Amino acid sequence: MKLALLGCGTVGSEVVRLLHEQAADLTARVGEPLEIAGIAVRRPDRDRSDLPVSSDLFTTDAHALITRDDVDVVVEVIGGIEPARSWITTALRAGKDVVTANKALLAEDGAALYDAAGEGGADLYYEASVAGAIPLLRPLRESLHGDSVRLVMGIVNGTTNYILSRMSDTGSGFAESLQEAGDLGYAEADPTADVEGFDAAAKAAILASLAFHTRVTAADVYREGITDVTAADVASAAEMGCVVKLLCIASRDADGVSVRVHPAMIPVRHPLASVGGAYNAVFIQAEAAGELMFYGAGAGGTPTASAVLGDLVAVARRRRSGAAAHTTSAYADLPVRRMGDVVTRYHVSLDVDDEPGVLAAVASVFAAHRVSMRTVRQFGRGDEAVLVAVTHTATDAQLSATVDDLVELPSVRRVASVMRVEGET
Amino acid sequence: MKLALLGCGTVGSEVVRLLHEQAADLTARVGEPLEIAGIAVRRPDRDRSDLPVSSDLFTTDAHALITRDDVDVVVEVIGGIEPARSWITTALRAGKDVVTANKALLAEDGAALYDAAGEGGADLYYEASVAGAIPLLRPLRESLHGDSVRLVMGIVNGTTNYILSRMSDTGSGFAESLQEAGDLGYAEADPTADVEGFDAAAKAAILASLAFHTRVTAADVYREGITDVTAADVASAAEMGCVVKLLCIASRDADGVSVRVHPAMIPVRHPLASVGGAYNAVFIQAEAAGELMFYGAGAGGTPTASAVLGDLVAVARRRRSGAAAHTTSAYADLPVRRMGDVVTRYHVSLDVDDEPGVLAAVASVFAAHRVSMRTVRQFGRGDEAVLVAVTHTATDAQLSATVDDLVELPSVRRVASVMRVEGET
Repeated sequence: MKLALLGCGTVGSEVVRLLHEQAADLTARVGEPLEIAGIAVRRPDRDRSDLPVSSDLFTTDAHALITRDDVDVVVEVIGGIEPARSWITTALRAGKDVVTANKALLAEDGAALYDAAGEGGADLYYEASVAGAIPLLRPLRESLHGDSVRLVMGIVNGTTNYILSRMSDTGSGFAESLQEAGDLGYAEADPTADVEGFDAAAKAAILASLAFHTRVTAADVYREGITDVTAADVASAAEMGCVVKLLCIASRDADGVSVRVHPAMIPVRHPLASVGGAYNAVFIQAEAAGELMFYGAGAGGTPTASAVLGDLVAVARRRRSGAAAHTTSAYADLPVRRMGDVVTRYHVSLDVDDEPGVLAAVASVFAAHRVSMRTVRQFGRGDEAVLVAVTHTATDAQLSATVDDLVELPSVRRVASVMRVEGET
Repeated sequence: MKLALLGCGTVGSEVVRLLHEQAADLTARVGEPLEIAGIAVRRPDRDRSDLPVSSDLFTTDAHALITRDDVDVVVEVIGGIEPARSWITTALRAGKDVVTANKALLAEDGAALYDAAGEGGADLYYEASVAGAIPLLRPLRESLHGDSVRLVMGIVNGTTNYILSRMSDTGSGFAESLQEAGDLGYAEADPTADVEGFDAAAKAAILASLAFHTRVTAADVYREGITDVTAADVASAAEMGCVVKLLCIASRDADGVSVRVHPAMIPVRHPLASVGGAYNAVFIQAEAAGELMFYGAGAGGTPTASAVLGDLVAVARRRRSGAAAHTTSAYADLPVRRMGDVVTRYHVSLDVDDEPGVLAAVASVFAAHRVSMRTVRQFGRGDEAVLVAVTHTATDAQLSATVDDLVELPSVRRVASVMRVEGET
């Protein structure tokens, strides 16, 4: 069986290394050797002498490599939308199975890839695109087949989880923790994709599509990043027995699906609460299976390459068995609910005048929008006071309207923060 | 596609119910309906009118049902060795795929089942046999294909985890916590299989076989239950920042595999430490993927039925695709290491005379067997003292010899407990 490798960066090099080191095992598991037919790179002259492959294999002509008759499987690890989309589409249409780690492309245009796979009768595997090495997509796609997934809630971005874990452990603010993450290599020079939640939103779209067997794109995902999370939010969460995490949440009910990424407070007893540092974890509620959680390294060349190889073996065995490809998960066409209709609980922190009657005024605004308060804490700070309200469940629209009116109250100086509270029963 | 169901107890009834409730979804996922051809039961006259199937489907003649020409897949949920083994073997030899939840049979005689599957060209799936609904065996079997699993460490028995969690939360002893587990339905009238570790040992054999692609039977598994775990052990664990869990541990090194089930102290920061109540979780270390953990409900009719249905869909899709069966995981033949060679750390608690020189005498016994002590705590209790030693790594044989000699010391009244310490780096 011959494969074409597109890209030879951090992940690609690890794929090459693992294919070499695990050759005997892989041959036993597949039933025949997995051979690299060629490796498409932009700079063929770069020194890659540390890789256990012949330098003859490197080429800049990806298209020619993909369309070679003897290539059975294409492994794409270059990332980004183009040229990855054209190359993958060409491969799938030509009946070559594709293994990819490209979350951005899948989240933006997964449907086009699925269509190309259908045309060519080829398989499209992408375990490495979400939560690195954690075997997560295959269980969603296969193991929970006889079940109905109701909720997927995950920590799928290691950079933001590292930053929030540091803020929680040390009491420091966002900027300081981001700086530290950058110094340690957990955050990129331009951290926007991570801290603004774009990376997590792409993964949320992929997870929701698989969990609910429908099509969700990154544009369908409501998104808030963690740049506005303050040390005060983290401290207030701790006071109520919670931690702050950047969550991706995909849920399904009779009216459709909702998919969102935002910081949220979750109880310390929740299985996701103890996921620290740069680790990832995805918590699932299914009707029959109950609560499940998958935990592991979310990124890194070797874990990602491990996921690529798992897919590669699955594809190779399927090819060898003579079975037809079965890349067709998106048969439902469920509506994506507007964020305004999403129901959850909220932590609202207000800076108010320290005078009698403030609580009554605030409470009446909540009541006017039928948002019920579960707890209220009030504490003075000079002539100013801080009032923290935690609500019962309400829609996002109700809460937004409440906040709009709170701002207008003469005794409310500022709405310091609004954060969702998740993971409680 | 037609299936024969063997058994209609807690799990079987749930399988019937889910097949009915999820019929539309299952048909979409498989590509054709999954139809129940018959249900083999011991007492056909029992009232099963609450189940959504015709009473004509029930039969006492399992053999005739299995060998019917129109039956494609056999689902076995009766448990136990016989007649399950004969029926499964008959089905596999006849080329019918089998889905089973039977951990006892797989652990005792999995090899015979694999052989029968090979003869008949049939598939054998058994996700439901370990850790209930947690999709765990398929990731081990498929997702980590391009990787090398080094360690599998799991909490795979809900009854004992409930008991140990209660002992830890309340400070109560084993007997009291067992009583409470029984009252709440978490322990059976005869709890031997759970509290003595037999259930966990069967699951350990299945996990080790899959993780290391070799054959391990229940008889290969070193086993200790939790009946000797005392409130003092749990308290001493807490003092050193640990909790006590019944662990199944399967590890692989250059010399072979070792598989064991015993109570152990693990640090509270370990991902397995926070797995409470009757939940199950399995922690895996793989060379490329790094650390992974799978968490979920370990037992119960509905979760187990969910796992059965996941397997059923996988088998049905494979059949429909025309692909050959590929039940052949056990291609390696790795030696199982003797327990005496297993290396770990130990918590040793001694009742000693409260007099000078005791520590020196004890330390010299450890030193004589080249077991290095990491920490020692000593505290008086009347004329008696308690001495708690935690060692660096040593083999089981070294530690056993040390304990044998400690008992002979005049100043040592009793070796109160010896417990392994796991999960530290």
